[in-house]
Amino acid sequence: MALTAGDRRGRDGIPDATIARLPVYHRVLTGLAERGVATVSSDELAEASGVNSAKLRKDLSLLRTHGTRGVGYDVEHLLSQIGRELGLSQEWPVVVVGVGNLGRALANYGGFASRGFRLVGLLDSDPVRFGELVAGVMVRPVTDLAALAHAEQVAIGVIATPAVAAQQVCDVLVAAGVRSILNFAPAVLSVPDGVDVRKVDLASELQILAYHEQRKSAAGIVRTGVSA
Amino acid sequence: MALTAGDRRGRDGIPDATIARLPVYHRVLTGLAERGVATVSSDELAEASGVNSAKLRKDLSLLRTHGTRGVGYDVEHLLSQIGRELGLSQEWPVVVVGVGNLGRALANYGGFASRGFRLVGLLDSDPVRFGELVAGVMVRPVTDLAALAHAEQVAIGVIATPAVAAQQVCDVLVAAGVRSILNFAPAVLSVPDGVDVRKVDLASELQILAYHEQRKSAAGIVRTGVSA
Repeated sequence: MALTAGDRRGRDGIPDATIARLPVYHRVLTGLAERGVATVSSDELAEASGVNSAKLRKDLSLLRTHGTRGVGYDVEHLLSQIGRELGLSQEWPVVVVGVGNLGRALANYGGFASRGFRLVGLLDSDPVRFGELVAGVMVRPVTDLAALAHAEQVAIGVIATPAVAAQQVCDVLVAAGVRSILNFAPAVLSVPDGVDVRKVDLASELQILAYHEQRKSAAGIVRTGVSA
Repeated sequence: MALTAGDRRGRDGIPDATIARLPVYHRVLTGLAERGVATVSSDELAEASGVNSAKLRKDLSLLRTHGTRGVGYDVEHLLSQIGRELGLSQEWPVVVVGVGNLGRALANYGGFASRGFRLVGLLDSDPVRFGELVAGVMVRPVTDLAALAHAEQVAIGVIATPAVAAQQVCDVLVAAGVRSILNFAPAVLSVPDGVDVRKVDLASELQILAYHEQRKSAAGIVRTGVSA
């Protein structure tokens, strides 16, 4: 779910909702740069990012970035500015705890390396998995977590365990100095101040869609598909 | 990421931010009901859900639900009320397109069946995967998607393909009458009015954490972990 209220503000006054859109702008701009596009209008960038252009201009003005009238934004400049803002100029060591289907998917996720993250550890509680190589990283016992997090100066811990194990894993990560946690387990985690938790809850995402689906059904919107 | 602005409102006036918290309340209440707990105070329910209790009371009042002073909320009643609001009284047919690591993780995800969703199809473009059984469902060619979506009256389509294939898959889903899409591909999808898209972007989640991590580093907050 990874919800943050739209009006909550980060440490330097940029709303969380803006911060959450920066990775999208960054991805779109990366695509433009790869195709050799030098400038982009706010309308084009907004449409490719799926936001309206007034919101985009406001977001970028919060980064003190303004386009040139009639020309637009310089793609390379904007890309490096957003990249710096997101902290992508350095590499962040990440551990994934829980090497079930989801943990495997995350470990094999191509976006890790290319976006400035380095997978430094995979941990599980099932001895059957110890020593297995997943995405080139050997699975280690979860009892190694604290030592590994220290040794590798882990910045981000990803929890992909069953719900029942999540808080305990979280506590070990926090005790080992990890201050950013991405939680895929369907459990609410308690953390001390200064630790950021983002939550991705697949069942909740489906339930939110079901809520809207039900409203659409109740409103009498019929399935509009034509025969295949 | 699955972002919706905090103040956007759904079709019946309930803010999207409230709707997004209903699955969390539902999960917590389910746990309480399973343990035989009959009533819960707003403070208890709020804490277990990771929200503050004023927000929780406001959310539930939007559902026209009010606790009894000194007693709290009736667990079973509140559970059925939120379940009805979320449309969990009926079963929603779901297809997953893309049977890579992530698609497999989603197919095997235990939350599907228990939360009112039924996996009716797994589709992929790679012939090597055709006929394979994943979570008891046989993988079919993606060219079967339109026919399957019609035949099974699919409500929710989950896109777990590479980014480059996502829009095309989305178009086929929409043409087949699917109006709710959960997108895991790192691509912005264009859909007509009346189609809801929720997006889960793993790299964006990590980048948002990196943003905060960088701010914490800049603020001079040192790693507080003790030696393992």
